[in-house]
Amino acid sequence: MDKRYVIGLDFGTLSGRALLVSCKDGEILASAVKEYSHRVIENYLPDQVTKLKGNWALQNPQDYLEVMEETVKQVVKASGVGKDKIIGISIDFTSCTILPIDKNGIPLCMKEEYRHRPHAYVKLWKHHGAQGDADIINHILEDYKGKDKYRFGGKVSSELLVPKVMEIIREDYEVYEKADQILEAGDWLTGVITGSRKRSASMAGYKAWWLPEIGYPEGGFYSALNEKLGNFVKDKLGEDICPVGESIGKLSEQWAGKLELVPGTPVGASVIDSHAGVPGSGIYRKGQMMLVVGTSSVIITLSDRPYSGKGICGVCKGGIIPGFYALESGLAAVGDMLQWFVEKGVPKEYYLAAAENNVSVHEYISKLADSLRIGESGLLALDWWNGNKTPHVDGELSGILLGMTLQTKPEEIYRAMIEGTAYGTRLIVETMKASGIRVEEIIASGGIANKNPVFMQIYADVLGIPIKVAASNQTAALGAAIYAAAAAGAGRGGYDSIEDAVKAMTGVREKGYAPVPEKHAAYQKIYEEYCNLVEYFGNEGNTVLKKLNNWKSGKGNQEK
Amino acid sequence: MDKRYVIGLDFGTLSGRALLVSCKDGEILASAVKEYSHRVIENYLPDQVTKLKGNWALQNPQDYLEVMEETVKQVVKASGVGKDKIIGISIDFTSCTILPIDKNGIPLCMKEEYRHRPHAYVKLWKHHGAQGDADIINHILEDYKGKDKYRFGGKVSSELLVPKVMEIIREDYEVYEKADQILEAGDWLTGVITGSRKRSASMAGYKAWWLPEIGYPEGGFYSALNEKLGNFVKDKLGEDICPVGESIGKLSEQWAGKLELVPGTPVGASVIDSHAGVPGSGIYRKGQMMLVVGTSSVIITLSDRPYSGKGICGVCKGGIIPGFYALESGLAAVGDMLQWFVEKGVPKEYYLAAAENNVSVHEYISKLADSLRIGESGLLALDWWNGNKTPHVDGELSGILLGMTLQTKPEEIYRAMIEGTAYGTRLIVETMKASGIRVEEIIASGGIANKNPVFMQIYADVLGIPIKVAASNQTAALGAAIYAAAAAGAGRGGYDSIEDAVKAMTGVREKGYAPVPEKHAAYQKIYEEYCNLVEYFGNEGNTVLKKLNNWKSGKGNQEK
Repeated sequence: MDKRYVIGLDFGTLSGRALLVSCKDGEILASAVKEYSHRVIENYLPDQVTKLKGNWALQNPQDYLEVMEETVKQVVKASGVGKDKIIGISIDFTSCTILPIDKNGIPLCMKEEYRHRPHAYVKLWKHHGAQGDADIINHILEDYKGKDKYRFGGKVSSELLVPKVMEIIREDYEVYEKADQILEAGDWLTGVITGSRKRSASMAGYKAWWLPEIGYPEGGFYSALNEKLGNFVKDKLGEDICPVGESIGKLSEQWAGKLELVPGTPVGASVIDSHAGVPGSGIYRKGQMMLVVGTSSVIITLSDRPYSGKGICGVCKGGIIPGFYALESGLAAVGDMLQWFVEKGVPKEYYLAAAENNVSVHEYISKLADSLRIGESGLLALDWWNGNKTPHVDGELSGILLGMTLQTKPEEIYRAMIEGTAYGTRLIVETMKASGIRVEEIIASGGIANKNPVFMQIYADVLGIPIKVAASNQTAALGAAIYAAAAAGAGRGGYDSIEDAVKAMTGVREKGYAPVPEKHAAYQKIYEEYCNLVEYFGNEGNTVLKKLNNWKSGKGNQEK
Repeated sequence: MDKRYVIGLDFGTLSGRALLVSCKDGEILASAVKEYSHRVIENYLPDQVTKLKGNWALQNPQDYLEVMEETVKQVVKASGVGKDKIIGISIDFTSCTILPIDKNGIPLCMKEEYRHRPHAYVKLWKHHGAQGDADIINHILEDYKGKDKYRFGGKVSSELLVPKVMEIIREDYEVYEKADQILEAGDWLTGVITGSRKRSASMAGYKAWWLPEIGYPEGGFYSALNEKLGNFVKDKLGEDICPVGESIGKLSEQWAGKLELVPGTPVGASVIDSHAGVPGSGIYRKGQMMLVVGTSSVIITLSDRPYSGKGICGVCKGGIIPGFYALESGLAAVGDMLQWFVEKGVPKEYYLAAAENNVSVHEYISKLADSLRIGESGLLALDWWNGNKTPHVDGELSGILLGMTLQTKPEEIYRAMIEGTAYGTRLIVETMKASGIRVEEIIASGGIANKNPVFMQIYADVLGIPIKVAASNQTAALGAAIYAAAAAGAGRGGYDSIEDAVKAMTGVREKGYAPVPEKHAAYQKIYEEYCNLVEYFGNEGNTVLKKLNNWKSGKGNQEK
């Protein structure tokens, strides 16, 4: 058969990206990016009049349509590939990013009568207006006796679907009432271009408590939260769930025209953007772990058993790769911490020296840090600059640095911060191990994985696990393309399984990072001290970090 | 009576200073400083050949004579005061700074046969070659049952007299054997210019375990340390002790000629340099506390009862002011910590902004720190950048900073570091209070007291005690002058007591710092958290700082 191609669409927080990819080997023939015109709506609605509260984050769904049209047409044109050779499309999308639509699939915010109503817009994943609603859920869950309690995975975040819906009910019930459906933006987009009302197993499973074996929580649970939610699943959520890697529908005539593709092209069920990176990194079997290290980190390990607790969630089978549970966690800050240090804590001499050597400050200071012996700095960092996910699930915890002397150098602090995040990563890996899953191989991606070999070697040494680096810089969009190839199927020139697609379409770089056994042993002792601190400062041992956080926000009434 | 004058001589670590001061009101008519020609001898003896070990710090006693001659002649000349109006001289000196001399008072190192022998030189207070000897003493003290155990004040430092003497015995016994006396450099100097063999109660009391009631420890104690020390007190130490503020002798004809003063002028017993700052700050009664804040801090409180423990030592009555015990402690780093931060932890923008505003970085960042509400930063610092004195007496402890987030600003860290040292100071004050002494008034001096009002107000608020600032910038040298005026006596135009001299000759500045009650209350809660950390990280709660220190020095065999 002639070469066949797929399109992967990656919808991030600020922009969307299209890749046109060869099914045979994953080669990327063309790539296009476009920012959302309204980016993140945080202060005023697009009407320029309606003011939002402080912790809101909305988007305009029209932006997604524009990005899709423009980037798809661009990559097709740039690649020179004939549209008859393009056998599938798939989307990954931020999540939980939801919107209310009418019975024709039109977002309420796009209708004149709702354009001044904040709750009619897309609530972006990082919209934080529903903390009070999450608190209610957590309070009720304390006494919840259902056998399916495990599906809630410990403490419920305000970023999930139901808190965001409860916020709509509480603040603008008419929007809730008039909405025909409330759904993920990724599901809305696949619906728009195919006419399908099916929903993605990925988003339903991870953000709306749906489980393949037993579906959504039963109605009584929702009534307990708010009686207006009694028929929530039936009234507002689709119960027709499409597994990942399958076709959720076929490209409609109308949208085939707009995108200049062939009508009837299979469209894969959408997946969560960070999850698309799993196949995009080359991961398809048990014991493989994805590590995306950028500003923060995302960690996903494939497992043959579910696990829920200590900030790790993995109870939905097949949410990423069919047949596997995917245990998910990550650090709330990694590159952000190092960037904070370089901006706020590095003296001018280092800037001058970096400029003189024609390297970035990160590169300059990493090189200095690399020449240190393990333990030489006498420093240890608790990496909670942006709170802690595993094991405490607490955004109010903060960072600690121990061991400073008058001789402490900036590169020693920088290295201690890297090591702190490596210990935090190891703690996640060890917690997963305690649930029965041994991580055998890590495939890393993200900005740091590609740019900082000193950082990566420290991770390999601390973790004691070999780390490979994904060949692609666009693991999420490549993952979407892989889902598209699987949705198309082998008969059309794609693949019959995600596993087959991953094996053919991904690779790793030549340079990987093998742990040095003596270094791993040396780090072991410091890691044990790290764990003591995690325990002491995260539990009841010493609640000083919580108190400091209260005083910071003025709760303790501290005087100027 | 016509105006009368005294000369105060202040021998510091790197230089000596003379002040010529009016007895009437403490007015300083002239001041002169001269560096020691050989400064601190750390690498090679003055012969340029004999190499020293790594942690040595010697001095050449000839330098002291040169400084004395030159600066005294300078101040007399500069002041225009007739020598017949100069009624007393007194010396303060670093301590424990000791040297071996022959029976004529000649330092062994100044004799040809000993000039290549390191142990024949002055061992400066910060000479650290005797740690092993201090360890032996501490080991023996563990089982020591003598009723006078309190005089040793807990853990014995390698900087004291006996460890330094044991080091001589161990490494160059001939020097010990041939020495007619081993004595403090301050006592040597008063002996040189008067011919007196008396010793200062100040140095004997604080550095050689002498107590006015019972003298030195009995011979059996010394034999237990080393049998060669059996007759140490009788053979090498003078037992004729002169109280502070009294004349130890009269200026000899020879030295009156050299210094161009009148023969027979009373010379006060020498005192420890930092202790001379007590009267020099205007302190003479119970409940007053001296706070010298510079690179580190010195804290001395007058008390009517002895105390020994938790890094506070005050068991020698009358060592500074007759009739009082002086409880001594301090922080091992204060200005040094802030300087470390400004050099190592402040980004280039702050340097540029400070330069633009034509202020130092310390001033610039202090002003920013001043605008913060108490608790606003969410930070808390454990101020152990140079180890901890009170309560743990442990130089291997190190600093901790808690509460960092991605929003943390340099001025917040700077303020947290100031606050950390203020909490450390409060802990010393509270420890003294627990011994029965309430600190009612603090008189501050030193570089920071004169330069940083933001720092000083934070101290007043944290401590809840009014802080005045000594009028003089030279409290130690002024203190020496006060001792000289007391040694001269009222009959000659001086004073009959140190108290009278202090009242007449010192003052405080107009600008003082009153604690704001609401701020003190707000700091109270954070101080309690500080104390929890002091307890946890200094005792057996968590020994991570000790382990980190071991690994730093390679004891844990950490790999590169």
